[in-house]
Amino acid sequence: MSPPSFRARFRCSDGCDFQAELTEVVYRCPRCQGLLEVEHDLEALAQRSAAEWKALFDGRFRAGPWPLGSGVWGKKEWVYPQLALENVVSMYEGGSPLLRLDRYAQELGLGPDDVWLKECGVTHTGSFKDLGMTVLVSAVKEMRARGVRVDAVACASTGDTSAALAAYCAAAGIPSVVLLPRGKISIAQLVQPIANGALVLELDTDFDGCMKVVQELASAPGLYLANSMNSLRIEGQKTLAVELAQQLGWEVPDWVVIPGGNLGNASAVGRGFLMMKQLGLVSRLPRLVVAQARSANPLFRAVAAAGGKPTRDLEVAPVAAQKTLASAIQIGAPVSARRALRALEALDGLVEDATEQELSDAAARADRAGAYADPHTGVALAVLEKLAARGTIRKGERVAVISTAHGLKFSDFKVGYHAGSLPCVAPRLVNPSVQVAASLGAVQDAVAKRFGVRA
Amino acid sequence: MSPPSFRARFRCSDGCDFQAELTEVVYRCPRCQGLLEVEHDLEALAQRSAAEWKALFDGRFRAGPWPLGSGVWGKKEWVYPQLALENVVSMYEGGSPLLRLDRYAQELGLGPDDVWLKECGVTHTGSFKDLGMTVLVSAVKEMRARGVRVDAVACASTGDTSAALAAYCAAAGIPSVVLLPRGKISIAQLVQPIANGALVLELDTDFDGCMKVVQELASAPGLYLANSMNSLRIEGQKTLAVELAQQLGWEVPDWVVIPGGNLGNASAVGRGFLMMKQLGLVSRLPRLVVAQARSANPLFRAVAAAGGKPTRDLEVAPVAAQKTLASAIQIGAPVSARRALRALEALDGLVEDATEQELSDAAARADRAGAYADPHTGVALAVLEKLAARGTIRKGERVAVISTAHGLKFSDFKVGYHAGSLPCVAPRLVNPSVQVAASLGAVQDAVAKRFGVRA
Repeated sequence: MSPPSFRARFRCSDGCDFQAELTEVVYRCPRCQGLLEVEHDLEALAQRSAAEWKALFDGRFRAGPWPLGSGVWGKKEWVYPQLALENVVSMYEGGSPLLRLDRYAQELGLGPDDVWLKECGVTHTGSFKDLGMTVLVSAVKEMRARGVRVDAVACASTGDTSAALAAYCAAAGIPSVVLLPRGKISIAQLVQPIANGALVLELDTDFDGCMKVVQELASAPGLYLANSMNSLRIEGQKTLAVELAQQLGWEVPDWVVIPGGNLGNASAVGRGFLMMKQLGLVSRLPRLVVAQARSANPLFRAVAAAGGKPTRDLEVAPVAAQKTLASAIQIGAPVSARRALRALEALDGLVEDATEQELSDAAARADRAGAYADPHTGVALAVLEKLAARGTIRKGERVAVISTAHGLKFSDFKVGYHAGSLPCVAPRLVNPSVQVAASLGAVQDAVAKRFGVRA
Repeated sequence: MSPPSFRARFRCSDGCDFQAELTEVVYRCPRCQGLLEVEHDLEALAQRSAAEWKALFDGRFRAGPWPLGSGVWGKKEWVYPQLALENVVSMYEGGSPLLRLDRYAQELGLGPDDVWLKECGVTHTGSFKDLGMTVLVSAVKEMRARGVRVDAVACASTGDTSAALAAYCAAAGIPSVVLLPRGKISIAQLVQPIANGALVLELDTDFDGCMKVVQELASAPGLYLANSMNSLRIEGQKTLAVELAQQLGWEVPDWVVIPGGNLGNASAVGRGFLMMKQLGLVSRLPRLVVAQARSANPLFRAVAAAGGKPTRDLEVAPVAAQKTLASAIQIGAPVSARRALRALEALDGLVEDATEQELSDAAARADRAGAYADPHTGVALAVLEKLAARGTIRKGERVAVISTAHGLKFSDFKVGYHAGSLPCVAPRLVNPSVQVAASLGAVQDAVAKRFGVRA
């Protein structure tokens, strides 16, 4: 399917000349310990015209022969061209809804066509992690097919990553191992990897202790580490930028607002837009906004201290991350800070933050217009609200907000907000249920009281 | 966009000559009290060739200009042709994943390409109800635009229907009312309509009491009833059959297995396949299997009593539905039984049932192969397992299983299964987590014990 001239490989992203095959078990540059990135042969890719790429991607999108209907694998040549098709492990990821939030936009003083919610959490495991995990687990399947020893894939995440790892490994028939701190995780958080047959180990330590053990575990041969610095995952996540343009009729929005913790996803989105521009599929780039929770905002602080303009050479000092409702981005030392800064510089970016109050109210405001926002998406929405109020984002500009998880994973957040029981939040948009007698008259009264009309 | 010759209208589905506009507030035939159905002008639709319809639908699918990227509205001419585009209320529904469950299929003795899971619950509100609710709420918006009085839309559902109603009404800015029995619903079940700004009324009665009041409420002008007999919803759900064929490259599977409670969805799927065949998009029909929970199996009983062959003239006697984990299909007197029997007759159908034990183990078995099945999907999977074991469904035949809700809505079901605490279920496939010391050696031992290899 892919001509053999399309090939991608690992290379050091920090400028060494280290290179490796994608089937090698390698996580960092062995020379400088820098992160790796997947390098594509852009010259070969450029031999197809932009129009040909668009037609190819459109023809497969959501309906191509298995597994090319996937939003990721329909763009296989840009992701992992030389992967054997039979080693693709897909859950039909990507192709997620792109909602126009007209009523929310108008509340912010923007136009009804201005705000679009890219629901990357409306997916098989309920988060955007599927986009990257499909590539990582497919690479492992290819490794095993070629005789590379991988007995199991392991991670130490409490949430979306372990759910995605377990699901894709289950589909592939590859053993998976999830390490968690005993007694600190609710059974509801555990049940996705348990259901998908992962070996779930509860360790008598805290989360950092689990990370330490899993890294030791993966330093011996046989255990592959599904960690957040893995650049195979970035290649899958990159496709969300391509898909966003595709769903807008191959146009780019003026702004992309994305929640940022470890910053891999922000860098992936930047990479996707840059690759489209390099290959001529789009003629301009959006501006990129990374939204952090104030409780865990090292990138925001670093950029603010430098006068507000993110540049690739900025040093991001680690901070002690405080507890935040946006738990998946409660990260004080983001592993992909440098990659994200490169994307921000290239996409004329901004970094903002939002308090617990702001993220909660923003999620509730969007919900009232039909969304069902998780707290991380709440951070992105709160930042959009600030930038709109400040006049940085203006009416008539098209904004895509990246939603990273399904709100169904965060019922407690919703219940807590409307019950007024979230820490540090005085909710402004609660919608309490109303108790009434079981009679037509009582119900009619309640309806009349709320809506001012009488049935 | 749609030539004016494409028009649909209500007509009595029981043979009266009653007809009405889709913007009329009418739920049943006023002459015979039969259900209504939406009648399309097939002669006008047939003026476009099958190839033209396919090209039109494919061109819009997941990427058409808003709202035509929706899986429902991309097929607008077949759903509600004369609806004004500005009255479409969409959450980018449809286009849900179609997963190939190779490892599960092989466990059943089928081929790796044989079993496909159509994940209609991987959607904005987490269930297939979005497909129908988008049409109902859009029709209400059109009514209001034409001066028909609809002050609010109401329903009395405890789960997916109220969530979908509240979300679509929130997007449209139309008031919604949800009636629920006080003290019988968990806050987690309530929080979707609460977050989406519905007026949530807790009545001092049981569920039947709520149904009675909401029907009285809707008999006065101003309150529109979003009930399950509403045939506008069927038109949206019908598109899932079209989408299934579309995602298989415009081929039909040999079998479609779907969980059945009120039986509206089964009849909708049948309608979709029949319409495709009538208009030449496919050349044959799949066989349709309706899967019921044994605790609520009136259709299964009626068909079994008649020798196993469903025919349109069968009488389905109501049964007292017993409690089942598949709560959304715990229905003893299915409102759409007659429509479903017509579909079953036309699609050479079968009806089977599954116990609590069977549905739970089947969901767990599929989860181990990467799925994350809700209990209703568990019913469908259990029935597939029976039919495969019996040799009715054979290796090499392609089966599509319709999954109706996101497993994320059913964490309690998963937790209960793996904890062994579900009523009437002795789980066969539990995967307990393992407690270990926080040392590399202890973790390596646990991995070795489980997988028989040592890292």
